[in-house]
Amino acid sequence: MSLENVVVILAGTKHPGNIGSAARAMANMGLGRLVLAAPRCRINEESYRLAKAGRPVLESARVCRSLTSALRGIRLLVGTTGKSGGYRSPAAPPRALVPQILDHAARQRVGILFGPEDTGLVDDDLRLCQLLMRIPTHRRASSINLAQAVMVVGYELFVGSLGHTPARTVRAAPLLQTEAMYAQLEKALLEIGFLHAQNARHMMFALRRIFGRAGLESADVGVLRGIARQVSWYAKTQDPDRD
Amino acid sequence: MSLENVVVILAGTKHPGNIGSAARAMANMGLGRLVLAAPRCRINEESYRLAKAGRPVLESARVCRSLTSALRGIRLLVGTTGKSGGYRSPAAPPRALVPQILDHAARQRVGILFGPEDTGLVDDDLRLCQLLMRIPTHRRASSINLAQAVMVVGYELFVGSLGHTPARTVRAAPLLQTEAMYAQLEKALLEIGFLHAQNARHMMFALRRIFGRAGLESADVGVLRGIARQVSWYAKTQDPDRD
Repeated sequence: MSLENVVVILAGTKHPGNIGSAARAMANMGLGRLVLAAPRCRINEESYRLAKAGRPVLESARVCRSLTSALRGIRLLVGTTGKSGGYRSPAAPPRALVPQILDHAARQRVGILFGPEDTGLVDDDLRLCQLLMRIPTHRRASSINLAQAVMVVGYELFVGSLGHTPARTVRAAPLLQTEAMYAQLEKALLEIGFLHAQNARHMMFALRRIFGRAGLESADVGVLRGIARQVSWYAKTQDPDRD
Repeated sequence: MSLENVVVILAGTKHPGNIGSAARAMANMGLGRLVLAAPRCRINEESYRLAKAGRPVLESARVCRSLTSALRGIRLLVGTTGKSGGYRSPAAPPRALVPQILDHAARQRVGILFGPEDTGLVDDDLRLCQLLMRIPTHRRASSINLAQAVMVVGYELFVGSLGHTPARTVRAAPLLQTEAMYAQLEKALLEIGFLHAQNARHMMFALRRIFGRAGLESADVGVLRGIARQVSWYAKTQDPDRD
């Protein structure tokens, strides 16, 4: 199957050379869609010099000012992380996730998100991701060069795509629609005192993981938004301080 | 299992940056032994800057003037090639070769040979290899950056090594001993007119593939050298021009 629905999203990249090397690796592995989200450098001569056969990937790269705008059209977002523990603990190795990613990519846009060279993806990025991926490494050298990480993930996707017959998957809601639902839900749960400043992040993460596993279609998101709206309305009518 | 018997051999490398990036990838994947065979550049500041956690790999790298001297101690040599066809046609993907490589690496030194950035391995290098490996790529972009290729192969070896229980393998003869046998055999076969200038390379390749598949122990090499010696002796006694 083709990988044309797979989008490589590089967030906050610092080094033009890494963008070029990532583009070359993408071309090697049949990946054509590159998005730079809030890059901290420009595509320059060095990028082009290193891109080789990936030149068309660079030339057609989309540059977005924010990660949010980079996610337009994405329905499944896979975050890559080198660390583990905390919210990251359920990160799975690429080979385990590839079949699921390919099933989704057969009918909808899938984003693979790579963080900046210095920090990797931070919690605010990771909470946007339905799946977390961690490339296995030797314990004493877990930090992988950005373009090398793109290569390994691209390689697994490419090898996995050879002869892959996609299974049916849900038609996932657009990511930005789901994000709007989460914002509304968080607000409602704060209003009724289920969430507090101290536990809000953690609880919302837990909810995201549940719904992420479930896979939400647009209709599901509509139902959840309806509940959130009703909860907010109810909270307002019960609040003695409001009229 | 540990990968300490796996040696990465970079032949004729041109760019110091690639050596550094390869060393970092090796460290990521638990590989520690790097040999530079007839490099066309030196390990420099750029190599060290890119090596990160692979600094010790660079520091302990062995630099050899020729490929032959780089092969000292190697008992199984795996050549990587991006091309196919001709002598290269039987090149297999990394995942298919990893179990066999790991079985050998459990008891003896295995070399993974990577060619220069511009040409890759040429026929003279490939004929030294018992196994040929080709990383699957998109057909329109088959040339992989050297350090990226080291990463993919290292990654497959590392992932394969997790939980691998080595099967018994032959205790392969040292590569240089086998090479001496091939030289002797070629000479003998020329003397009796089985080989000619036109077919010698091709026929020797065919023999190498047969014996490569078989896996030769030192005793086997001794038997074959004995045959070659006898053939040479016989040829000499039959030659009317000699006394």
